[in-house]
Order: sequence, then C-alpha cells, then structure tokens
Amino acid sequence: MKREAYFPEVVKQALSNIPPGSWMSAVPEGCIRLNSGYPAANLVPSTELKEATDRLLTEEQDLPLHYIGSPRIDQLKTQLIERMNERKMEVQEDEVLVTSGACQAIDLIARILLDENAFIIVESPTYMEALEIFQNYTKNIITIPIDADGLDTKQLEGILIERTKKEEPLPKLLYTIPTFQNPTGTTLSFARREKLIKLAKEYDFLILEDDAYGELAFGESPTTLKSLDEEDRVFYVGSLSKIVAPGMRIGWIAAHSEWIEALFWFKKDLEHPFAQSVMSAYLEKVNLAHRSVLLTEKYEEKAVILYEALIHFMPEGVKWYRPEGGYFMWIEVPGVDTTAMLAKAKKAGVAYVPGQYFFLHQDEGKSFLRLSFSYASKEEIKKGIEILSHVVAEEINK
Amino acid sequence: MKREAYFPEVVKQALSNIPPGSWMSAVPEGCIRLNSGYPAANLVPSTELKEATDRLLTEEQDLPLHYIGSPRIDQLKTQLIERMNERKMEVQEDEVLVTSGACQAIDLIARILLDENAFIIVESPTYMEALEIFQNYTKNIITIPIDADGLDTKQLEGILIERTKKEEPLPKLLYTIPTFQNPTGTTLSFARREKLIKLAKEYDFLILEDDAYGELAFGESPTTLKSLDEEDRVFYVGSLSKIVAPGMRIGWIAAHSEWIEALFWFKKDLEHPFAQSVMSAYLEKVNLAHRSVLLTEKYEEKAVILYEALIHFMPEGVKWYRPEGGYFMWIEVPGVDTTAMLAKAKKAGVAYVPGQYFFLHQDEGKSFLRLSFSYASKEEIKKGIEILSHVVAEEINK
Repeated sequence: MKREAYFPEVVKQALSNIPPGSWMSAVPEGCIRLNSGYPAANLVPSTELKEATDRLLTEEQDLPLHYIGSPRIDQLKTQLIERMNERKMEVQEDEVLVTSGACQAIDLIARILLDENAFIIVESPTYMEALEIFQNYTKNIITIPIDADGLDTKQLEGILIERTKKEEPLPKLLYTIPTFQNPTGTTLSFARREKLIKLAKEYDFLILEDDAYGELAFGESPTTLKSLDEEDRVFYVGSLSKIVAPGMRIGWIAAHSEWIEALFWFKKDLEHPFAQSVMSAYLEKVNLAHRSVLLTEKYEEKAVILYEALIHFMPEGVKWYRPEGGYFMWIEVPGVDTTAMLAKAKKAGVAYVPGQYFFLHQDEGKSFLRLSFSYASKEEIKKGIEILSHVVAEEINK
Repeated sequence: MKREAYFPEVVKQALSNIPPGSWMSAVPEGCIRLNSGYPAANLVPSTELKEATDRLLTEEQDLPLHYIGSPRIDQLKTQLIERMNERKMEVQEDEVLVTSGACQAIDLIARILLDENAFIIVESPTYMEALEIFQNYTKNIITIPIDADGLDTKQLEGILIERTKKEEPLPKLLYTIPTFQNPTGTTLSFARREKLIKLAKEYDFLILEDDAYGELAFGESPTTLKSLDEEDRVFYVGSLSKIVAPGMRIGWIAAHSEWIEALFWFKKDLEHPFAQSVMSAYLEKVNLAHRSVLLTEKYEEKAVILYEALIHFMPEGVKWYRPEGGYFMWIEVPGVDTTAMLAKAKKAGVAYVPGQYFFLHQDEGKSFLRLSFSYASKEEIKKGIEILSHVVAEEINK
C-alpha cells in the first residue's frame, strides 16, 4: 500500500520538510546541557505541585477527573487574567483560551488563519517549533532579520511596500517573540513596537505575540504589543512553562472574543481538567508577580556568569549580545560550521543547539549557536563555556 | 475590522456549522444526569491518582515537569501496548502515539487524511464530537445507518458500488465505533466486521476504529477491527477516559509506523509529561484487565436497572435495544420531538441528550434520545426513568 497517496497535497508538502524535533539531539550522560531551554531543576516547584494535587483531590475528589466540573478550570482562567491585568493588559473572560502550552496556541492560531495560499512573516532566526508549525500550513513564509533591537521594522516596511507595488499577496500574520527572543535573547525596542503596530494597521496584518519569556526581565519589563494594540490585531500567547513547569502544558491565548470563539472551534483535545486544576490549586498559594521576581534574580545570576565566562574564555572574533532577560544567549562564531562542531563539543562535554534549526533557510544559521543559561548550574555554565571555548578555538584555528 | 475576512474558505465553512458543544445543555442542580457520558463518581480513582502523583513526584522530582525526561512517558506507551497485546492486538512501540484523549486522536487522523475535497463515511447516528471534528475538514460526509448489528455494511457496499459506477469520488476514510457505539450502544457483528475489512481493501479506504468502550463488554469481548486488519488500513483509537478518568486526557492511536510518523508531525501540543507520568505511575499499581472486569460488573448492574426501568415505566411505542456493554442506551420515541421535550424533562428532574446532535442531518434524530447509565446511581437511574416516562407519556398523548 502506498501510504503517501492518501495524504492531501498540503500534508505531503509538510512531510517533505525537516522532521519535527530534529534540533533535539541526544546528549550523552554527564554532558553539560547548555542546549536545554528548560527551567532549572531546583526552580521547578515539584513539592508545591505535589501539595497542590493532594489538596485538589482531597477537596474535589472526582471533579477534576471528569471532562468538566472542577470550578478550578474557570478559576485558572481568572488567575491568568489577573496576572495579565497586573501586567497592564486588559483582558475579559471571553478573550482567553487556555491551551496545552504555547505550542498548541501557535498551532491553533495558524489553523484558523493560514491555508496553503496564505503568507506569514517570521523573524529570522526564530523559535524552531513555530517554524515547524507554520510549515505545516504554508510554504509562503517571509523572513525578516533580527538585530540587537529585535525585528528590523525598516526591512519589514520595505518588503511590505515592495509587495504592494508588485501586487504580490500581503502577509496575513506576523509571528514575533518581541521580548527576550528565542533564540537570540534580544528585545524589540519600544519605538519598533509602535512601528510594528502601525504597520499592522497600514498593511492589514495580524500579529502573533509569543510572550513565553516576558516575565523574566532583568531590568524593566518591556511593554507588550498586546497593551499597544487598539485594533485587536494581536493574538497574545502566554505560557507557564518557563515560570512554573513545562510538563504541566499550560499556555493560553488572549485575543478578541471573536478570535477566541474561532480558536475554540478547532481546539479538539477538550479541556485538560487534571493539569489545569492542579495548576490553579498551585497558583492559589503562589503570587506569580513575586515568583517572577525571584526567578528573574536567579536566572540573571546565571546569565551574568555565562556572559562573563564568554568574555573570559572565548577566542577573539566570537560575538554575542548581553542578555536582558529570558533563557538564552545567541553566539556567532564566524567561519565555523556549528552543526559539524556539535559532535566535538558533546564529546568534550558540552551541548548547545546549532543555529541552523532556527532559520527557514538553514544555511543562514551555520555560524550561530544557541546557549541556554536556564537549566545548567552556575558551576556547569562556567565549566561548559570553558570547554566550548576550547572547541571553538580549535575550529577557528583549523 | 471584519474578522471573517481573515479566515481561509475551509475555516469559514467550518464556522458555519453548529457550534461545538451545542449538545451539552446546562443541567439544573438536583436534576438526574442521564445525559452525562461520564464514569461514575465512585469509580473514578481519585485516591489512587493522588497516591500516584505523590509517588511520582517523590521519586522523580522535577523530571515529569520538564518537556521530556521522565522515564514514565515511555513506560506509559509500553503499558498501553501490553494491554493491547492482551486484547490480541499486536502492536510495536513505533506504532503507537499517545494523544490527549480520543478526541485529539480523531482530530489528528482527520488532519493527515482529509482536506476539503476528501470524502469520509460515518455511521448515522454517531459520536457528536467526531462529527464536529470531521466537519472542520470537509463537507463531504456520507452517512450509513446503524441497526441492531451496527453499521449496515450492505448499504455501505451499495453506496460504494453506486459511486464507483457513477465515477463519483470514493471515501478515503470510514469512521466507526464498532463496539458499544456512542450513542446507540450497538455492536458491529463479527460477520459485518469481516465484511467491512473486505470492503476497505476492495474500495481502498482506511478505517478509524474508535474503541473507547471496548473494555466494557458485559459478555464476550468483540474482536476489534484492528486485530482483523492485515493491510494496516485501521487507525485504532483507544482511550483511558472511560476506564480510568477523562480529566487525565489520555488516549492513543495504534497504526502502521508510517501513519504514526505523519500523525506525530502534526501533533504540536508536545507530550503531556505530568498527566502521562501520573497515569503511568497509577497503572504500575493497577491491572487494567482486572479493573476492566470490575468496572464492567458495576456498569452492567446499572444497565440492567435502566433496561428494566424502561420496560416497567415507558409507555407503549417507545423502543430500545438491550445494551451489551459500554455506557449508553438509545431510545426511540416515535412522533415526539426530543429536543423540544428536553426542557420539560429537566424541569421534571431528569436530563438526557436529544438524538438530533448525533446526526449529520439533525432532523433524522428528532425522535431519538441518548441515555447514559454510567454516571447516575442505581436509585437515580430508576427514579430518572420513572420521571422521564411520565414526560414521554404526556408528549405521546398530546
């Protein structure tokens, strides 16, 4: 039986891309994990979640184990809205949809907006999972480079002007991680945020704002696009993966109620009452604003150690930005193929993610790599950069 | 802003259908819930799941709270495969994908096979969530009636012959709940199962076998289509919702490894490590075969009470089959509009699901209703049927 024959064209097209998760290489035992975009093990509240589960099931018994019925399913939504309000984003109850992490949120937004004829704009580089998702819907992906101030809105405008002139289709959606971007760690400047919102109005596109790292600002917290959005063009995507635990799979979309209604239509995995209620019970005992401050302090300490280790150990020519929040640093090693180098690095005892996976046109990422300061300990970070610097130096001097 | 303008045609089309969950009407406090396809509250293992969570997080700490890392994510798959093997379905590890319940499983299968040009066959009546899902992909839904022996394979063959003759597109997929069907409670006879597999080969279509109720056989357990499937045409969908707890959202797909690979490609909510690991820890202490026997005994007692109450209380002319397993009974009340009657029934103190929601062409379901014997207690079932019978008698005599 020829299985491919059963797939619609758009599915065949998607299946011809790089398989999902290709970027996630096996890491040998004992290797320092500067690749993992995970929260630090000691910052994952396993004891508190255990307590929350115990309290939940003692109080509610079977309720959170049915399809619906636990009052904490609604309560979780309220808790997320309260936190958004604190962060100066006005959101009502019918403007929020809880999802299985940011990934399902992104997939659902793509589902209601993109077909194979639609155009979408993404940052370059960008979050590899999001690239995978969009490529499941359309080939028409336009990339706009990122610099130290985030998405280059001048280039964006140039492309929009040119496409208009040439009567080429305009994009429907722009995907951005404006704050502490994955993988670059950069943040979109305020001026560019205003410009982006203006361009969206002018060229009639929608914005998917992925704010997975927004709670982790070392300095002042940047204004979200959502709070600048007067025309309901922004689909805001939040996540508790980075500030509570990714394994709970709790994310959400905040958008105009009509968008939410359409998104709900296509969300066919139903609610996740157990995970959602446990999370809600956990949040009853935790102030997210305080937790965010505490986590940020810890991550900043590690970011500084990473930054200083790079200065101390890395050979000349290697480049990076100073991180202002989030989980990541983005390193350029001019002239070196970071994909080829990974095997040597892992053998030497340190893992990273090669830059190519964050680019639609993978070749553009050959000389970059992503380092995460979230998961490894301070000692490991320092040691890891020392090891990596030797490997890099060898490659440069080859 | 005109939001509809942003949606692709297929999305607009989907959004013109009946909104998801329309069948789920509000049930007043104190009303007997013969509508809910829920496991009985006292059969949901909340204490055991609490213990499992506690044990899991004590042993593994942060592991099940990351994206990956808990060994119990893989172990759950092994446990599901072992149970399938016990039920005479040979399945390898690369032939299983764990999903968020049967609903996500059905949605994913639709995602890789159906576009707006594809044809699909469903039973009539059928599971309303599945109808909602398929309608999100295509308008081309062909319905085949069900009788006491399940899907009418003679009619199916007739339609296939006719479409072939007329050179009309043949269906790609057939969706069936062959065992203790939702909503009718009927089971496809063995002869028809063989016939169905034969037709699939002959007319080159695939089969989605939804086996959500397969573990709950009052008598001998019917042979699954999966175990008759020599050509890997069957996508088997299993679920722990009915035999453990729906709120955990654990289902799975078993199919040829190439199908599984494609399904995984489009499953963008990632793994659900917390829920999956808790379930796996729970299953370490529970023998599913034994649990299935115990649950079946309990549900059969309630089914018998429902069946006898119908005989005792229902006015003449009302019809039903004797259930052989599962959660449901399907009642025909000739000449009565069950949708209109629901308000009266709820006012009198009993809720059911009107038949119309299980039909693509809702008018065909006007005189049917679905009763569930799973959730309500024995006393409630008896009382509920007494109340419902009075309401029905009044409607008939109107």
